[in-house]
Amino acid sequence: MVATPIESPSLIEIAKKTRDSARQLATLSSQERDRAIEAIARSLESAAPEIIAANEADCKQAQIDGISKALLARLKLGETKLKATIDGVRDVKKLPDPVGQVQIHRELDEGLILKRITCPLGVLGIIFEARPEALIQITSLAIKSGNGVILKGGKEATRSCQTLVKVIKQGLANTKVNPDAVQLLATREEIQALLKLDEYVDLIIPRGSNDFVRYVQDNTRIPVLGHADGICHLYVDKAANIEKAVEIAVDSKTQYPAACNAIETLLVHKDTAAQFLPKVAEALGRHKVELKGDEITREFLNIAPATEEDWKTEYCDLILSIKVVDSLEAAIGHINTYGSKHTDAIATEDNFAAESFLSQVDSAGVFHNCSTRFADGFRYGFGAEVGISTQKMPPRGPVGLEGLVTYKYQITGNGHIVADYTRANAKSFTHRDLT
Amino acid sequence: MVATPIESPSLIEIAKKTRDSARQLATLSSQERDRAIEAIARSLESAAPEIIAANEADCKQAQIDGISKALLARLKLGETKLKATIDGVRDVKKLPDPVGQVQIHRELDEGLILKRITCPLGVLGIIFEARPEALIQITSLAIKSGNGVILKGGKEATRSCQTLVKVIKQGLANTKVNPDAVQLLATREEIQALLKLDEYVDLIIPRGSNDFVRYVQDNTRIPVLGHADGICHLYVDKAANIEKAVEIAVDSKTQYPAACNAIETLLVHKDTAAQFLPKVAEALGRHKVELKGDEITREFLNIAPATEEDWKTEYCDLILSIKVVDSLEAAIGHINTYGSKHTDAIATEDNFAAESFLSQVDSAGVFHNCSTRFADGFRYGFGAEVGISTQKMPPRGPVGLEGLVTYKYQITGNGHIVADYTRANAKSFTHRDLT
Repeated sequence: MVATPIESPSLIEIAKKTRDSARQLATLSSQERDRAIEAIARSLESAAPEIIAANEADCKQAQIDGISKALLARLKLGETKLKATIDGVRDVKKLPDPVGQVQIHRELDEGLILKRITCPLGVLGIIFEARPEALIQITSLAIKSGNGVILKGGKEATRSCQTLVKVIKQGLANTKVNPDAVQLLATREEIQALLKLDEYVDLIIPRGSNDFVRYVQDNTRIPVLGHADGICHLYVDKAANIEKAVEIAVDSKTQYPAACNAIETLLVHKDTAAQFLPKVAEALGRHKVELKGDEITREFLNIAPATEEDWKTEYCDLILSIKVVDSLEAAIGHINTYGSKHTDAIATEDNFAAESFLSQVDSAGVFHNCSTRFADGFRYGFGAEVGISTQKMPPRGPVGLEGLVTYKYQITGNGHIVADYTRANAKSFTHRDLT
Repeated sequence: MVATPIESPSLIEIAKKTRDSARQLATLSSQERDRAIEAIARSLESAAPEIIAANEADCKQAQIDGISKALLARLKLGETKLKATIDGVRDVKKLPDPVGQVQIHRELDEGLILKRITCPLGVLGIIFEARPEALIQITSLAIKSGNGVILKGGKEATRSCQTLVKVIKQGLANTKVNPDAVQLLATREEIQALLKLDEYVDLIIPRGSNDFVRYVQDNTRIPVLGHADGICHLYVDKAANIEKAVEIAVDSKTQYPAACNAIETLLVHKDTAAQFLPKVAEALGRHKVELKGDEITREFLNIAPATEEDWKTEYCDLILSIKVVDSLEAAIGHINTYGSKHTDAIATEDNFAAESFLSQVDSAGVFHNCSTRFADGFRYGFGAEVGISTQKMPPRGPVGLEGLVTYKYQITGNGHIVADYTRANAKSFTHRDLT
């Protein structure tokens, strides 16, 4: 007898297994899913030393490979970060169940009842960079929402991810959730293959650089949750309160410059430029922000020129371009032309101007007299954020657990047929909403 | 001086014009949009003779070109159909405004108020076949929902479409809606170009053959509302009431066989096959339905064999494939493998079996003891249907006006900055829902 060599399972086999386990997961009760999440938290707690050791090995190798300090900081999963992440798992458990919510409950006719009810999407494909705690967060969100998940972490986090998935599967082993619902891919080549699996994967969430997200969007038929660029603006209107506007500008630019909801361009009404520009330049200077300006701005400030390219650039850094505009309409026009439909704000005491801005700016977030940095699922009170979408179709903006579920229409009847509603002397629909 | 030749505007120019007019349309009040819809209805009424003449010219040419009787019937827009369509325009006017609905209204902190509010998508691209009244319906739905629309009708309806758009623009001329919000494309080549305009077009709605819809889905980055296949099933459980099941099968197959929500395959539990199959075959025979069966089915019925290919086929005709299954699970497995996630039904008096079916079948519509033909926006009480989606992400299933709007997050503050919520002794969010 010749022994058949054991081959590593193909990606399609992995995807099928995830799909099957996800179908079973979708039928579990809220309590059963919450118990599985608690089991994951406990398993992670027990295995903390093993997880930290694996992560330390990753960090050592990364240092040998010479990765940047910033990346190393994100890769590192010490005891404190792990504990906080496990607390986060229990926070996810406490969130309201996104599955089984009845959105429509309607009598179509006597004994013919329509329900629109939320249900899991199926299988999520998550591709993330260094941060290993992202794996823990997204897995708990997937199980909370009844979805299977296929994970692919960065190469530098290989040992951390393998250990985490092993520990998570151990936790699930004694629950109603089949451990096969959580899968980890090993190689970078599998990303391309994953993007082609539109039969098995219902949503891709890429977490990484703008270029990487754009690559994913351009190379898959699977819906993608996320955004490539975050080119956000603050427009300081002629009726702005200068002090508030300066504070909002500083916060929007400097509170976390690498975030997608930080501003890249400041638009200033010409009537307020002389008063506002020197003050904001001084305040931003204290935060070491490098300024670039258009011609008129440079009449007030001694700064480098901003070019057409600047209006299209997400600096992700302490750099800000400034443009003086003739009117509110010009500001709205600039934002709708150069913005990325993420988040844009107006500073003004004129409520009419604010209303025009909020209704005409074509972005997921339109803010009045507050920082663009508020654009965030946790700050919106969603309890979790699975991504921020800059697409026009919902889900748009910061997306909570709502983005991981869909709905189906259920009708129950008692032998009802359509012919009875179309023939002569047809029955008619009642369309009575039930509460 | 040399005269510059007048060129026909390029598609990009048309798209930009539509985008600009749509931005303005998006700011109009409910009353202003409704007045525009009424103006369209009146303009169509006054121009009825001109419209009917143009349509008659199309029909004559189509007959010379030898188009099928079915297509000719769809192309023909007589007085009665036109009047009914104009009534439909006024029905759209009466629908609740889908724009400006507040979905979330939440205090994030004192003086910092979040609203999630519905707004138009922007510009719709609609590609439809022969039926010229589709142009009228979709234009009134677009304006109701605050969207601009770029239309492309079938070649055979050229004169009808040109006249209709001219008359619609005349109607809009004295309203707040810029007539440029409605555009008609002239040539088939422009379809390909339209699909590339993801910067200007927010949603494509293709109305046509399965192959055409698949072509559109495969050739654009713009979201597509619609479905290629409608492979729907009825599963007759061992606990089915045989008479109800026969009636549901007949209605689901024959009430309108070309519809996407008609069934293509009948699945029958083995324990009920002997009793059910002869009865359903007799009833379907009276409606001239051609039957194909798997091996076990053919032990009971003298019919042609069904092959693997049949389980994947949407006949759009009076043909039905039949398969005997061992269990409820096998039926669910077959549907989730071969179905198109459109609409699938179970006939059973066993509520536990029904619940399993409704929760485990992965389709937009899951029905118990009623015909699949109920899957329809009007029957669901949406007042309008812009398409039926078989994608997993919302909007899913029959889509009403809800599918033509999105939402944005508006926050109003009074100088609020994020730094105050992250520093030592930070302020905290209240996240209090306001009613």
